[in-house]
Amino acid sequence: MRDTLEALDAGEIGVAEAESRLAGYATTAAGRFDAAREHRRGIPEAILAEGKTPEEIAALTATAVETTGRALVTRADAADAAAIRASMTDGDLDATVDRDERTETVVVHAVDFDPPTLDATVAIVAAGTADAAVAGEAAVVAREIGAAVDRVDDVGVANLDRILDQCDRIREADVVVVAAGREGALPTVVAGLVDAPVIALPVSTGYGVGGEGVAALEGALQSCSVLTTVNVDAGFVAGAQAGLIARAVDGASDA
Amino acid sequence: MRDTLEALDAGEIGVAEAESRLAGYATTAAGRFDAAREHRRGIPEAILAEGKTPEEIAALTATAVETTGRALVTRADAADAAAIRASMTDGDLDATVDRDERTETVVVHAVDFDPPTLDATVAIVAAGTADAAVAGEAAVVAREIGAAVDRVDDVGVANLDRILDQCDRIREADVVVVAAGREGALPTVVAGLVDAPVIALPVSTGYGVGGEGVAALEGALQSCSVLTTVNVDAGFVAGAQAGLIARAVDGASDA
Amino acid sequence: MRDTLEALDAGEIGVAEAESRLAGYATTAAGRFDAAREHRRGIPEAILAEGKTPEEIAALTATAVETTGRALVTRADAADAAAIRASMTDGDLDATVDRDERTETVVVHAVDFDPPTLDATVAIVAAGTADAAVAGEAAVVAREIGAAVDRVDDVGVANLDRILDQCDRIREADVVVVAAGREGALPTVVAGLVDAPVIALPVSTGYGVGGEGVAALEGALQSCSVLTTVNVDAGFVAGAQAGLIARAVDGASDA
Amino acid sequence: MRDTLEALDAGEIGVAEAESRLAGYATTAAGRFDAAREHRRGIPEAILAEGKTPEEIAALTATAVETTGRALVTRADAADAAAIRASMTDGDLDATVDRDERTETVVVHAVDFDPPTLDATVAIVAAGTADAAVAGEAAVVAREIGAAVDRVDDVGVANLDRILDQCDRIREADVVVVAAGREGALPTVVAGLVDAPVIALPVSTGYGVGGEGVAALEGALQSCSVLTTVNVDAGFVAGAQAGLIARAVDGASDA
Amino acid sequence: MRDTLEALDAGEIGVAEAESRLAGYATTAAGRFDAAREHRRGIPEAILAEGKTPEEIAALTATAVETTGRALVTRADAADAAAIRASMTDGDLDATVDRDERTETVVVHAVDFDPPTLDATVAIVAAGTADAAVAGEAAVVAREIGAAVDRVDDVGVANLDRILDQCDRIREADVVVVAAGREGALPTVVAGLVDAPVIALPVSTGYGVGGEGVAALEGALQSCSVLTTVNVDAGFVAGAQAGLIARAVDGASDA
Amino acid sequence: MRDTLEALDAGEIGVAEAESRLAGYATTAAGRFDAAREHRRGIPEAILAEGKTPEEIAALTATAVETTGRALVTRADAADAAAIRASMTDGDLDATVDRDERTETVVVHAVDFDPPTLDATVAIVAAGTADAAVAGEAAVVAREIGAAVDRVDDVGVANLDRILDQCDRIREADVVVVAAGREGALPTVVAGLVDAPVIALPVSTGYGVGGEGVAALEGALQSCSVLTTVNVDAGFVAGAQAGLIARAVDGASDA
Amino acid sequence: MRDTLEALDAGEIGVAEAESRLAGYATTAAGRFDAAREHRRGIPEAILAEGKTPEEIAALTATAVETTGRALVTRADAADAAAIRASMTDGDLDATVDRDERTETVVVHAVDFDPPTLDATVAIVAAGTADAAVAGEAAVVAREIGAAVDRVDDVGVANLDRILDQCDRIREADVVVVAAGREGALPTVVAGLVDAPVIALPVSTGYGVGGEGVAALEGALQSCSVLTTVNVDAGFVAGAQAGLIARAVDGASDA
Amino acid sequence: MRDTLEALDAGEIGVAEAESRLAGYATTAAGRFDAAREHRRGIPEAILAEGKTPEEIAALTATAVETTGRALVTRADAADAAAIRASMTDGDLDATVDRDERTETVVVHAVDFDPPTLDATVAIVAAGTADAAVAGEAAVVAREIGAAVDRVDDVGVANLDRILDQCDRIREADVVVVAAGREGALPTVVAGLVDAPVIALPVSTGYGVGGEGVAALEGALQSCSVLTTVNVDAGFVAGAQAGLIARAVDGASDA
Repeated sequence: MRDTLEALDAGEIGVAEAESRLAGYATTAAGRFDAAREHRRGIPEAILAEGKTPEEIAALTATAVETTGRALVTRADAADAAAIRASMTDGDLDATVDRDERTETVVVHAVDFDPPTLDATVAIVAAGTADAAVAGEAAVVAREIGAAVDRVDDVGVANLDRILDQCDRIREADVVVVAAGREGALPTVVAGLVDAPVIALPVSTGYGVGGEGVAALEGALQSCSVLTTVNVDAGFVAGAQAGLIARAVDGASDA
Repeated sequence: MRDTLEALDAGEIGVAEAESRLAGYATTAAGRFDAAREHRRGIPEAILAEGKTPEEIAALTATAVETTGRALVTRADAADAAAIRASMTDGDLDATVDRDERTETVVVHAVDFDPPTLDATVAIVAAGTADAAVAGEAAVVAREIGAAVDRVDDVGVANLDRILDQCDRIREADVVVVAAGREGALPTVVAGLVDAPVIALPVSTGYGVGGEGVAALEGALQSCSVLTTVNVDAGFVAGAQAGLIARAVDGASDA
Repeated sequence: MRDTLEALDAGEIGVAEAESRLAGYATTAAGRFDAAREHRRGIPEAILAEGKTPEEIAALTATAVETTGRALVTRADAADAAAIRASMTDGDLDATVDRDERTETVVVHAVDFDPPTLDATVAIVAAGTADAAVAGEAAVVAREIGAAVDRVDDVGVANLDRILDQCDRIREADVVVVAAGREGALPTVVAGLVDAPVIALPVSTGYGVGGEGVAALEGALQSCSVLTTVNVDAGFVAGAQAGLIARAVDGASDA
Repeated sequence: MRDTLEALDAGEIGVAEAESRLAGYATTAAGRFDAAREHRRGIPEAILAEGKTPEEIAALTATAVETTGRALVTRADAADAAAIRASMTDGDLDATVDRDERTETVVVHAVDFDPPTLDATVAIVAAGTADAAVAGEAAVVAREIGAAVDRVDDVGVANLDRILDQCDRIREADVVVVAAGREGALPTVVAGLVDAPVIALPVSTGYGVGGEGVAALEGALQSCSVLTTVNVDAGFVAGAQAGLIARAVDGASDA
Repeated sequence: MRDTLEALDAGEIGVAEAESRLAGYATTAAGRFDAAREHRRGIPEAILAEGKTPEEIAALTATAVETTGRALVTRADAADAAAIRASMTDGDLDATVDRDERTETVVVHAVDFDPPTLDATVAIVAAGTADAAVAGEAAVVAREIGAAVDRVDDVGVANLDRILDQCDRIREADVVVVAAGREGALPTVVAGLVDAPVIALPVSTGYGVGGEGVAALEGALQSCSVLTTVNVDAGFVAGAQAGLIARAVDGASDA
Repeated sequence: MRDTLEALDAGEIGVAEAESRLAGYATTAAGRFDAAREHRRGIPEAILAEGKTPEEIAALTATAVETTGRALVTRADAADAAAIRASMTDGDLDATVDRDERTETVVVHAVDFDPPTLDATVAIVAAGTADAAVAGEAAVVAREIGAAVDRVDDVGVANLDRILDQCDRIREADVVVVAAGREGALPTVVAGLVDAPVIALPVSTGYGVGGEGVAALEGALQSCSVLTTVNVDAGFVAGAQAGLIARAVDGASDA
Repeated sequence: MRDTLEALDAGEIGVAEAESRLAGYATTAAGRFDAAREHRRGIPEAILAEGKTPEEIAALTATAVETTGRALVTRADAADAAAIRASMTDGDLDATVDRDERTETVVVHAVDFDPPTLDATVAIVAAGTADAAVAGEAAVVAREIGAAVDRVDDVGVANLDRILDQCDRIREADVVVVAAGREGALPTVVAGLVDAPVIALPVSTGYGVGGEGVAALEGALQSCSVLTTVNVDAGFVAGAQAGLIARAVDGASDA
Repeated sequence: MRDTLEALDAGEIGVAEAESRLAGYATTAAGRFDAAREHRRGIPEAILAEGKTPEEIAALTATAVETTGRALVTRADAADAAAIRASMTDGDLDATVDRDERTETVVVHAVDFDPPTLDATVAIVAAGTADAAVAGEAAVVAREIGAAVDRVDDVGVANLDRILDQCDRIREADVVVVAAGREGALPTVVAGLVDAPVIALPVSTGYGVGGEGVAALEGALQSCSVLTTVNVDAGFVAGAQAGLIARAVDGASDA
């Protein structure tokens, strides 16, 4: 809020603009951007690229970077990333633009942005190759919120040795996200092995009845272990919730 | 039936053909009883007590005992068992009538009935107390077909130690039935640990979305291990299929 | 169990290992009871009374109290509570037995049981009278894990004033459980107002299409705020997960 | 049609009756067009472009303009609009042809068409960018029926400030359409804030379970506020019903 | 609001009570009652009797009568009505208590309550005997809001003569509620015949696939006529929305 | 096939039996073709073009024409028709090949094929343009079986005048097929107006909940008129069943 | 009704018109009874006893007998039948009242009622004991319409011999109803064996996924044989449609 | 992996243990490959080509061939096969690479791989052309496990003669897989005719309600014959389970 008032004081913006910013959002041609949310929960506003033109994405991204120092774009292809890079140049914004190919996320940081760092770890466990992209999206969000992230891949229930091998490592984390498709048994098994809160992240694999992640989601809802769940493929939500828990843990350790 | 006899009389068909035609079914007031099925697959005809009067059940049971030497009645309460016992006396049938309270099955054997014995074992694994009744129904059927049955109870996935403890024992079996409700992860985990064919038997536990065994069934259909499944609570079918496999194994060992 | 003792005797394993193996479960007539789970996650084993006889419930409860010092029985009626009280007397167990009528939970504490206390608060927010029982079950579990619990009732979205009135109070909590049936908009609204992690607890109210809590669950899965969810009416799971998060927060503050 | 004329000729029916019978529909190569509907309810016949060729669309549009002075084409692309423009020229029809890119609607007015004007306002409220196209379709229809339309965009429930900001403005309307996808909480919240009738317009956003607008529709059906709903993405129906209510209000104010 | 302030001024209530009333609700042992809603939309608060004890219902009703001068209780049996009558006596409340047996609604009016009267008519059309109770609930609510109500019964689509007979009568209404179960074709047919806004009210008749009102609800959502719908059996919502439209029409005619 | 001939040769079976066995199917590279079906029920075997290559379709068609004198190919595009024409030339088959563009059916008749003619009429009623293709498929099949077919188009329930206009004409038919999508009210209305058996043919129009013909199918299953139904878009089945009824009627009139 | 008589009196309509208007329905306290339907299609109006009081049923039945000479009551228990008998006595109606216990139908014929007789046969085929009640309801209706009915019971697909045994008999019928629950394969198999039109009648047997007749209904909709279907347990509709076809066949044979 | 080797080096574990740990999985760039599974159950690891790049597929295949001597790739197109062939050359692996066009499977055998041979037969029965590809996938897997495979095609239930013709042949098999789409009646019919265990393999044919294999799957779950099922199109699972049963039979015959 001080930024806005200082900008007003400095004459950089007018009263109307200040009022509008303080109400919780900045306006671009492509719609309002929720800057207040960043301040409120520490979760960067995710710009879902799907269904938007590269120009709209770039405009929203530029506003986000101007207002909050960073942006997180999900399901973005290479053309979207290019449009974002161009908009940084055009807007004289000095920022890094990193696109991860597997997860199709773009992270943009203003060079003077000081990313948060939490003293808490999120483990992100994935059963197979097909679960890796969704798990990766969760990882990107958790990292942006400031958590340390530990990725544990290829631990399917069809081969228990793999899970038992990694058990001690997973137990180190403060909160655990478990991505799994098909029959989705992994979150239940992991929650039976660790003390930390577990978040199930069902993945849209599998065909036929119960396919597209439905069996995995219902398995999480019916789990005989204690865990909560997000919707199928909702990597952003799982990562953000894990980040919020990490922040709560970090806040407590500061006190 | 007269058609068959007349055809035999007229020399149109031989004795064997007539016998085969007539063996197909015996008739009672409550409906035809499929004696041929017993001969064909070694599976005793299951008389589902639900929705029938004790008198109808007793009549069907008496016919089965007269025709095939035994009967298997499922979901039968104490009154049904009493009616069956009375019908044995009334019909001068010398038979044992055993009702198992937990599984609500009644097994009737004529005293001169010589039960089959197969040189093959069916393991029946159950996750919790709630799965025991359905698993028990499977066990009764498999035993009637002649298989040796090994019951392994209380091995839920939320505590892997329990499963690993019993692993060697389960590996001894020629075929494995795994009963599980809720999220139904157990069949997948067991099929990852043993070499024998595994049959999932989903159980109608759990409430809310995916409850009543639906998540467990979909989990079996989506399993990343190799297994086949039966419908929710279909203990009779799971036990009978396991018995058929045991019979195939036994037949081969005889050869 | 003999295997473990023989192994200890033979010097193959040490005392600690043997203890750990044996702590895994205690056996009663009604089934094994998972004492290890109490040690592992601090969540008392919930004994679901539904579908069990008072005798079975009492036996499981007695074992739990002997092994872990306490027991939590859910969906228990007055007869179940009476059976539990009798079993305490019969077993010479000195324990308090408290049944809450609204939530139908029974909490049993051995008099020498020292309940855990966490330096963390769980807010439990409920929309209407119909949501109170399920919310109450969550509260009981969270309290047993040691969290301070703050109940906030009667805050439906159809009247925003109610929510805004209570907003500051809800913001004090370290983790928030929001119980809501019907259209289930409340968890989304609350998660937009607070910084802490929010867990949606859909309640089986409403009739017609989307009734019985289905719309509320789907609303949580589709929420445009960040939150995770449990299944419909899964008060125990929501409260336990909130308790686990509270424990993580408490652990950090101790460090 | 000959039957009607012969009956008129024979004096069996009068001119008014004949006119009424014949007004029922006009025939084009692509099918009958319902001119009577325009007269009956004041709702312009919507020609759904999807699944028709540009030629069929143009023919139906020309008939509509000739018979009723106007036409409304939904889900029409640029090629459809071009075909319509050409058909106006070819048919010596003097008419304006306006295509709105976002909502993909084409409005055609004969130059001598005198559009209705109602003394009543429809507010059309939308949660996010993704809801704008469907909301826009509703707005076009309501305007064609003659209502004043007030668009209120970007008021999602995840940030209550936005809604409260716009509350007084929404309260000015005689009837309110609320478009929302995902968890669809907005119609419930708005109906709790205003006195006018509210129509929910669920939008096909969201993926996974409850996605494609299903959770939003079920949320409207389960709403704890008073409101009615249309199907997912049925912008035309929501706008037309709002227009009918505006017409009823206007009619009363004339009396 | 003036009532409250005057009461404060008159010393009838204290400051705390005034504050609480203005915040939108009055408190009873059975929960808060939403008096503000009555003031806001003219819809009497419906107290759903189902799932509450007669005592809870009576307490909520007494509070409603004290606060707003009336109460509307739905799905109330004879015992509930008796408890309400007793509570009126006990509380020295001078009120009429009318229970309609068919619709199971109880309407309570303080003798000095001056019911609103709107210059607008709601037609309530029902297909068969089975639809009458739900239609009746809608009628009671609409009447309480002040609308004139015209009931049109037994007009099923399987016999078009019946509908055509009543068409002129239905056309007199300012808004039409059409209750129908089974295949639910009636709302579509009626909306094709009248100019006023039509609200479909699906009824939970029919068995098998699409039964319990599901086909009727889906038919309303897919209707090729313009109409909006409420959930299956939601007579209260349909009647209340019709009442809100009648109020809008009445307000306009006053202007 | 050799088995049959050898059995004939050996005198084990007679000529009639051998003929009957061999009439059962003719074999092509693309699979067996069921010639016996043509003889049995008078329904030409429908070759579903979807999912087959033009070559496979042409081969099956040639076999059908050789064996039964005709062929009916559904969902066939222009390329399929071309391949069929070429195969007639290649195989020296003198046959007419007619493709109907709207219904995408191809009818092939050997020049010496004598099509059946039944003294019975099938009325095929369709609500809108979108229903015409599916209705047309039904018409083609009914005609091939030999029925006179009367098409009645554009009779939607939203405008009852249209239906009443055509009522006398529809009453002339011996059996009526009614194609309708969306809310599917038309079959119910028509069955209330005619004496002949009515077959509902739901069409996959409509979007959102109940879309793709689901509401129309459920409406047929729940109809308060007497009628039977086929699956969504199953024009072939509806036409064939109507043809079978026409054949029964024709057979009776011959007697 | 007075309107019609006044119009007749005033000479506005003639006797025929008045008669036709009045024949449409007769009125009782329990609702209108559709006498015209009996005249129109020859299907006796079915009075569904479920959900009505014995008094309401008796009143409707008496009206039906007075107006059309007969009545058909479905799902009627012994008390309903007693009330009907009493109402015949009370109303001085000389009629036979026959209740069939298995199908729970009551058929009432005035002694001077001359039941129709059609020269056409309906075969009603049922798979098992559980299908017999629903099949019986179809038989009663078909007989009331005048068809000869041939019942073929106990022909399940699990034992093909049974079906093949009865094949010649089934082939004698003009139309075939096939009742089957569980996997519902029987209608498909029968339709592959006979020339007459086949109507599937799914029965609500089976539990778990696809239970309650759902798999049987879907099997009928997906059948690779030609057949139409009614909803689960809709014995009345299947029998009535079969009767209508029998009537069409009979009408043709008269010509 | 280093952990294992270091542990071996340090004498903490023996060679056998190390071997067992390392046999568990081999690592490629595209993910871990489960070699242990091959050893454990004799089922070759299936590499699902769908959703992977040709390079990833080729790398996984090469690893499989190196580790286990063979590979089985499902849903692989020609480009995938080419990449596999190239990788064999590049990696100096001497192996045969066979792609079956219909089933889209690729089988790779190192030239020195000695395929297992079991003394047991799997019959694979398919209803129609559309079921052949899925049935073929099952056949390939069963053969790789070592079973003799007997394919029986074109035996649909709509023509029982076809099935009865092949009955003796099917009875020769030790286990039977029955692939069927649409209404899926074939597995039930076959299981009524043979003694061996039957596995239903539902195929995703059919459109409308119950289409895409859903009716076929539900039919298998509801079957009145004894059988187990796999998910829709799960040819690999059905073939693998049949292979496991064949292996059990073979093992017994060796003993």
